[in-house]
Amino acid sequence: MTEQTVIAEELAKQLRAVSVAEFFEKNRHLLGYENPTKALITIVKEFTDNALDAAEEARILPDIKVVVKEVAPDRFKVRVEDNGPGIVEEKLPLAFGKLLYGSKFHRLKMSRGTQGLGASGGILYAQLTTGRPAKIISSTGKEIHEIELMIDVSKNEPKIISHKEEKNPNKWHGIKIEVEAEGRYIEGKQSILEYLKQTAMSNPYAKIVYDGPNGKVEFERAVKELPPLPKEIKPHPYGVEIGLLRRMLEITNARNLIGFLTGDFSRVGRSSALQICKLAKLDCNKKPNELTHGEIELLHKAMQMVKLIGPPTDCLSPLGEKLLEEGLKKETKAEFVVAVTRSPTVYRGNPFLVEVCLGFGGELPQDQTAQLFRFANKVPLLYHAGDCATTEAVIETDWRRYGFSQSSGQLPQGQLAILIHFASVWVPYTSEGKQAIASYPEIVKEIKLALQEAGRKLATYVRHKNIERERALRQNLFERYLPEVSAALSEISETPRNSIEINLKKILNKGKVIESVKEEGIEDGEENRNESEE
Amino acid sequence: MTEQTVIAEELAKQLRAVSVAEFFEKNRHLLGYENPTKALITIVKEFTDNALDAAEEARILPDIKVVVKEVAPDRFKVRVEDNGPGIVEEKLPLAFGKLLYGSKFHRLKMSRGTQGLGASGGILYAQLTTGRPAKIISSTGKEIHEIELMIDVSKNEPKIISHKEEKNPNKWHGIKIEVEAEGRYIEGKQSILEYLKQTAMSNPYAKIVYDGPNGKVEFERAVKELPPLPKEIKPHPYGVEIGLLRRMLEITNARNLIGFLTGDFSRVGRSSALQICKLAKLDCNKKPNELTHGEIELLHKAMQMVKLIGPPTDCLSPLGEKLLEEGLKKETKAEFVVAVTRSPTVYRGNPFLVEVCLGFGGELPQDQTAQLFRFANKVPLLYHAGDCATTEAVIETDWRRYGFSQSSGQLPQGQLAILIHFASVWVPYTSEGKQAIASYPEIVKEIKLALQEAGRKLATYVRHKNIERERALRQNLFERYLPEVSAALSEISETPRNSIEINLKKILNKGKVIESVKEEGIEDGEENRNESEE
Repeated sequence: MTEQTVIAEELAKQLRAVSVAEFFEKNRHLLGYENPTKALITIVKEFTDNALDAAEEARILPDIKVVVKEVAPDRFKVRVEDNGPGIVEEKLPLAFGKLLYGSKFHRLKMSRGTQGLGASGGILYAQLTTGRPAKIISSTGKEIHEIELMIDVSKNEPKIISHKEEKNPNKWHGIKIEVEAEGRYIEGKQSILEYLKQTAMSNPYAKIVYDGPNGKVEFERAVKELPPLPKEIKPHPYGVEIGLLRRMLEITNARNLIGFLTGDFSRVGRSSALQICKLAKLDCNKKPNELTHGEIELLHKAMQMVKLIGPPTDCLSPLGEKLLEEGLKKETKAEFVVAVTRSPTVYRGNPFLVEVCLGFGGELPQDQTAQLFRFANKVPLLYHAGDCATTEAVIETDWRRYGFSQSSGQLPQGQLAILIHFASVWVPYTSEGKQAIASYPEIVKEIKLALQEAGRKLATYVRHKNIERERALRQNLFERYLPEVSAALSEISETPRNSIEINLKKILNKGKVIESVKEEGIEDGEENRNESEE
Repeated sequence: MTEQTVIAEELAKQLRAVSVAEFFEKNRHLLGYENPTKALITIVKEFTDNALDAAEEARILPDIKVVVKEVAPDRFKVRVEDNGPGIVEEKLPLAFGKLLYGSKFHRLKMSRGTQGLGASGGILYAQLTTGRPAKIISSTGKEIHEIELMIDVSKNEPKIISHKEEKNPNKWHGIKIEVEAEGRYIEGKQSILEYLKQTAMSNPYAKIVYDGPNGKVEFERAVKELPPLPKEIKPHPYGVEIGLLRRMLEITNARNLIGFLTGDFSRVGRSSALQICKLAKLDCNKKPNELTHGEIELLHKAMQMVKLIGPPTDCLSPLGEKLLEEGLKKETKAEFVVAVTRSPTVYRGNPFLVEVCLGFGGELPQDQTAQLFRFANKVPLLYHAGDCATTEAVIETDWRRYGFSQSSGQLPQGQLAILIHFASVWVPYTSEGKQAIASYPEIVKEIKLALQEAGRKLATYVRHKNIERERALRQNLFERYLPEVSAALSEISETPRNSIEINLKKILNKGKVIESVKEEGIEDGEENRNESEE
């Protein structure tokens, strides 16, 4: 045996599998737990996102309560309660005590949670930093179950510490989850309060009560009706990877290619399916699992070539232009807002759509970098803006065309707020902490198109304000000299100065074309515009 | 049964576990595969990092060959060969065909790979985009094994397509791995060539031959000796989380607390262990797995309170100030470089150290944002700079103190290059693609301290250049008027003008204090410094 063989055999002994829970415990920052401030926000966010998903999916107007209390220095109790359908007793431990376990991963449907990592990740962090189990109270309307659980990290399995069952005379249903974790509490730009505020904005049909360290805040329901439930869909043939196609062919229940294409994909009718088979030179009655690798390649190519209509829109639940404009106006006190909701399109076979809202002037700060508000599937994103497809798209857009100044590679400058909402059956987050959207080329492109569309609409207004401003300047100038002009004219024409001045003022006021916009509004808008022309 | 119970039971049916391979296939961007350009770089990077690790761990001077060839439009064959110890036959399939499988996760030792996700992730992406298996050739010096494998995604298990065994008369050892994947090839700032160039810089003892689409490039070995092998260590008591402590207490082989503390941690001798037990008011002969939760909390607190020396340094392999300075000078042609290697410190119980090198002037571009070079465990980081602890630390450092201009929240401006090397037994990457370091507060702080230390040294030089520059300006001014002055003096003193001029020039030249720096060097440095004073 050579020396290398000895080393290789020694190394082989160290090779072993890593449990998913071990992986995320050691890499807790991947889930958003790299510092105590962010950790506390992440726990609230994960539990709240799940609560909203649960109620919404059961067609219940969400009633969410969030409690955050400091129990010791840098140590907090976090409780989130919802009025959703609850989780059945048998599945409770796995749903909360096993990472990568959930109902949302294997379907194509727009929802806040996706991976089955959120709640269990919060519990994992809590037990890592305080050693305490999580308490979960659940009822589906039958008896109430209260369990305390921890995660067995090396196995990634739940470990039940206690289990109580109680009667439920009022038929309460929902989930209450409580953990104790290390954290630090702040209010301000990146905070629990800001997250809840923005969540209330993008979910106006939810009532959210926040009971935090500094008192209670209630976000009342602004709308009494739920938006339509987004539908679960099948993948669209465009952009489906060959590896995925291969696996779909292996596991399909369809008995032939035509059945596979029409049954396992969206937007493929019988004639499209026949056309795909013809293009691929494949017998449409062939069994799906009998295709050779070469045939799969041909099929894959043909699927990209055939003309199909875009994905259905009912799998996505946009906020809509009205809500976007109202929300941004309320949040920023902008003077002018304009929103654009684009039609759905596809990346990697997943339908998605982009909505954009631009706010201008008003109480927006002057001479500063534009404010960016980011949302994915109605969830506000507070961190990692620098690493987000939305930021990339904003930077790559030429804002000088719309009247703003912009250095290369930077966000635009000016009295500008930019809201971007990315809605998809599958949001490609840059990390499991779900704070930024990955820069898939199709996604960046679509966001840019939305920004350009909104930018053009905004530019019209900015130009308008421009004309107004110049008129106002001229008028101001004339008004300033009005007494002197009147006096001179009075001397020449031997008419009383007073009447001349009154008449001149009348003429002047006729020149005002847009009277609806207040003087202050114009001034606010102006400085910014001036600057952006430099 | 209420309506909610029905819904809850319906939802329960959808709950199920997600395989790690499914998770990363759907989230391929987490591994660095969100677009074809980055995907190609990531494959090369993962295979090369593993190759370097393998050779280095077996104390072999690395000899790496990287081949990238376009086999069809947007489709590449990538092959990486090393001269490491190889992997034994039985473990080959798991080592490459199962995600989260490896030898590096469960130990505390500085290495490039960590999670057991790199090579298998590349294979997963390749099969997803081309449907092709990976080919792996391995020998430990005995027979040569050649296997073709794919990953069974829904099970996260290897699937062997073919296996050949061959004789090995030359006792070759190492790994050759080859995949075919979708990609796009570029050269420039973020490219395979740049990654290999920087890798050669931080691993001067490796020979790397690159055979790319545009021809061959060889990076010769600059040093003929391997650095000392970093040692595997035990966790340091500072910063170990209570959840981890609890698990360590459960699985330890030690029979009592004193044995646990001295045996399972680094830097805890008998007297420190006794002190910890005393502080925690615990019997030092108590069995580790019999501690109650309250006792674990006391122990945890006591471990943070007792005074211990810092972690051992031999678990880390810094580049060293000499190599850093040579490397940065060669890469940027800077006029002046200064490096700082800090002593190791701890985050979350993990020892780490920070090295920084600053380059100034010379051929560095003027009037631009400082260039940032980032390394983690000798691996260059090319992406996600905006999301990296290194960038955060650079932004939070006040560069105006060292003679550079800087807007708030931005990188400094000027003829400045900043190289940062983070070395740790555990690098907390912001995502599995390993392109940025997570902003743990202890890490950001330590990087800032290193930058400040180097910044102060650089400032001395910058000030020096300052004095020189002013002297040069004065001299230039005087020289310009020399003919006039000489003429005037000649008239007054009735001496030949020529001799006066020569004598004046002599006096002038005595004033030059630093003659070693060339005139061009000064001018290069000046414009930048001027600007930074604004």
